[in-house]
Amino acid sequence: MTVKPNKANKLKARLPRGFADRGPNEIAVTRRMLDRIRTVFERYGFEPLETPAVEYTDALGKFLPDEDRPNEGVFSFEDDDGQWLSLRYDLTAPLARYVAENFDSLPKPFRSYRVGSVFRNEKPGPGRFREFMQFDADTVGSASPAADAEICMMAADTMEALGIARGDYLIKVNSRRVLDGILETIGLAGDENSTQKLSVLRALDKHDRLGIAGVKQLLGEGRKDESGDFTKGAGLSEAAITTVLNVFEPATDSADKIAHLDRHLSHSKTGQQGRAELQQIDALVKACGYDDNCVVIEPGVVRGLEYYTGAVYEIDLTFEIKDEDGRPVRFGSVGGGGRYDGLIARFRGEQVPATGFSIGVSRLMAALAHLGRVEGKAEPGPVVVTVFDRDRIADYQKMVAALRTAGIRAELYLGSGKMGVQLKYADRRSSPCVVIQGGDEKAKGEVQIKDLIEGARAASSIASHEEWRESRPAQFSVGEEKLVDAVREVLKRHNISYR
Amino acid sequence: MTVKPNKANKLKARLPRGFADRGPNEIAVTRRMLDRIRTVFERYGFEPLETPAVEYTDALGKFLPDEDRPNEGVFSFEDDDGQWLSLRYDLTAPLARYVAENFDSLPKPFRSYRVGSVFRNEKPGPGRFREFMQFDADTVGSASPAADAEICMMAADTMEALGIARGDYLIKVNSRRVLDGILETIGLAGDENSTQKLSVLRALDKHDRLGIAGVKQLLGEGRKDESGDFTKGAGLSEAAITTVLNVFEPATDSADKIAHLDRHLSHSKTGQQGRAELQQIDALVKACGYDDNCVVIEPGVVRGLEYYTGAVYEIDLTFEIKDEDGRPVRFGSVGGGGRYDGLIARFRGEQVPATGFSIGVSRLMAALAHLGRVEGKAEPGPVVVTVFDRDRIADYQKMVAALRTAGIRAELYLGSGKMGVQLKYADRRSSPCVVIQGGDEKAKGEVQIKDLIEGARAASSIASHEEWRESRPAQFSVGEEKLVDAVREVLKRHNISYR
Repeated sequence: MTVKPNKANKLKARLPRGFADRGPNEIAVTRRMLDRIRTVFERYGFEPLETPAVEYTDALGKFLPDEDRPNEGVFSFEDDDGQWLSLRYDLTAPLARYVAENFDSLPKPFRSYRVGSVFRNEKPGPGRFREFMQFDADTVGSASPAADAEICMMAADTMEALGIARGDYLIKVNSRRVLDGILETIGLAGDENSTQKLSVLRALDKHDRLGIAGVKQLLGEGRKDESGDFTKGAGLSEAAITTVLNVFEPATDSADKIAHLDRHLSHSKTGQQGRAELQQIDALVKACGYDDNCVVIEPGVVRGLEYYTGAVYEIDLTFEIKDEDGRPVRFGSVGGGGRYDGLIARFRGEQVPATGFSIGVSRLMAALAHLGRVEGKAEPGPVVVTVFDRDRIADYQKMVAALRTAGIRAELYLGSGKMGVQLKYADRRSSPCVVIQGGDEKAKGEVQIKDLIEGARAASSIASHEEWRESRPAQFSVGEEKLVDAVREVLKRHNISYR
Repeated sequence: MTVKPNKANKLKARLPRGFADRGPNEIAVTRRMLDRIRTVFERYGFEPLETPAVEYTDALGKFLPDEDRPNEGVFSFEDDDGQWLSLRYDLTAPLARYVAENFDSLPKPFRSYRVGSVFRNEKPGPGRFREFMQFDADTVGSASPAADAEICMMAADTMEALGIARGDYLIKVNSRRVLDGILETIGLAGDENSTQKLSVLRALDKHDRLGIAGVKQLLGEGRKDESGDFTKGAGLSEAAITTVLNVFEPATDSADKIAHLDRHLSHSKTGQQGRAELQQIDALVKACGYDDNCVVIEPGVVRGLEYYTGAVYEIDLTFEIKDEDGRPVRFGSVGGGGRYDGLIARFRGEQVPATGFSIGVSRLMAALAHLGRVEGKAEPGPVVVTVFDRDRIADYQKMVAALRTAGIRAELYLGSGKMGVQLKYADRRSSPCVVIQGGDEKAKGEVQIKDLIEGARAASSIASHEEWRESRPAQFSVGEEKLVDAVREVLKRHNISYR
């Protein structure tokens, strides 16, 4: 089969926007990070579960926060029986489906963790992908604030297991019931106000980015950003705005914040329930040694998803990085979650209390990279057995086989290049050494081993090509039968071990 | 938020046909299996690569063998810019895109392995899913039969690393050029005969299932199966059929098969190229100790995919299992691959030689299960700290925290059940022991530890409930400060260790 070069009909090799390939180093550090997270989640008693990437569209529901494109955000396609399928957009909706489908056979509470790709049909941007990995843990079947407290403590332990020190992260906890109480207090109870309620929550959610002044504008008439774009506000009165902004009232500690809430929410039963929840969570985490420097009550926290019904929590990284314009900003959220007592009810027709959280894997990886906490590395490069004499390829292949049998990562050079090209290939693969056997060596029953690491070092201290050719540093001959031992020696010299 | 039970509007929780959930045990054994495969592939010098689940439809191309539904088999959806996207149906087409997109920056030959979900929009059946996992390895940029030989040896090493003994598997090798040569010999050269050529290949591909007699019918007029369905044949003459069936001619060994081919293909240049390829592959694998009992030349092997251009190989498990009707059948293929020198040319406008193979992960898992070779197990169940007195939940939570800090998998009972329900929950979670602290113990500064494994053993040898209550086997008290040590003791007693 011959394909003639045809520039006109040639396909362009490209990835769709918002999708990415990953190479050996990224794969290795991700594996290491996922392993550490897994260890913490297992220690907390959570069990692994995997669900498929594809679900019925109606089973997933539409819970994505997407102001601009309602009913979008999901990749969907029709099945041959006319039913609609979608790629999962998170790992919570599939869990709700799983629990509902297997309800009777599961232990209750059901504690599971899941890790995998999720898909969002959104506009991609820097660090914003249309396929990305989440790592979730959820407790289904417990209405106890102790379940929320466990998730918060586990989030803290996870950060520390990854090398993020206390002080560099903060688990912020709130309850949607507190926010509902505030809304009730300003007269926004009931479903008929849901649009305006959502505007208020969205305004609060922008506190980290816009500060109090920005939130205040968004609660009132609206806000014009630097580019001149205007965002319509929630249209609250001055008095209502003052009440809402109470959630950001400074306090000495979590207990003090809870005391403030008690005062602000004195007229709302729902708000008081939320306050009591926060009080219990706070008491539990404090009893276990998670102080305010680690798990803190923060009544301004919203979390985007609409299905939350109680506690919500956010993993916030507090150290500073530079934004695009070089200004220092806090790294921000790498995950969060909350209580969603109504989600499984869509299938069951009865409330099933549930709480859980989700870690954004690539965002967390970016944070670890910033902190210099990235661990795990790709396997060291393979030993390359070069092909000097094409007729004796079986001899070379046997050397490769002997090295592999000894547990050494090795390969035969499979290209068509001459020795120079082969050595460049070995360099490109980060090979610790290459094996060479020309006709002379063969006649003597020997092989040459070239230590590429030592060679590179020596090269930098040698004056001329002639001197190089004469001394041939880091290159030596051994009897064929000593090949494996000699290669082992080179690996040992450079502290290289293969798994 | 209260959701009233509403049977009528309730969503049905169900998975789309052909998709599956996986629990802790399946996840653990899969992880273990993938790790073993990864170790072999790394040892051969292959590097990990990950590509996304979604690609441009045109980049994937249409290479699925699907007789009945041409242009189907793929899940596709339109992007918001009108371009079509698809879920990958294998890991080879995305590799071709990746190599073409990054051609200049990659070492050549480029050796990579990939593992992940692929999606087929096909009719699901027993053991046949619409999302399943493949594990691939490919060498791109080498036209040498040594590259094919390496893949075959690696396939053999992989089977043995998984505990499948030599004799229970067979790597069968052929070349499409041999088959093209046969087709040329019977006058079916050129593109104008492609439909009939495809019919001949499809007939040969059914040899394992239908035997020589069935293949013969399919090469001729056609075949009626047991259900009465008629499959139209390739319509070859008697003489042509005899020539084609030469590929199944019995031979003493691989060398003998190659000698036969030399005779049968004396009039075809393409066929002779294929024969020479097989001869080189056979020489290389034999030189490295892979005998006919392990890697064997088999001129009848076709492999389904249309893009193969040279060597093709198949991993065949030769031990017998029972089919649906209880009749013994060979387990069959768990993977395979071949040379596809034209695939990357779609993007590059020039040939890029490539060869590789794919393992069907769940099919291989089924084989290992059959052989009793499934390794890896889920974490042992957690120690459950029960809640005797709801007001003292912080005390219980502190015990859990102490156990976890000591590296012991532990959890607080988070449900609302009484002690009996809590113990049942612990059983359901396979807990080695539970921790109980009632008012009396609290007053004495003690905790009770109930060894569930010992308890279950004792229970089977105790006559009555009364006797049980009196002796309370496997239950003992220790001072609060000795909790961790005492639990460790129980774990040690049963050889339980958490990672």
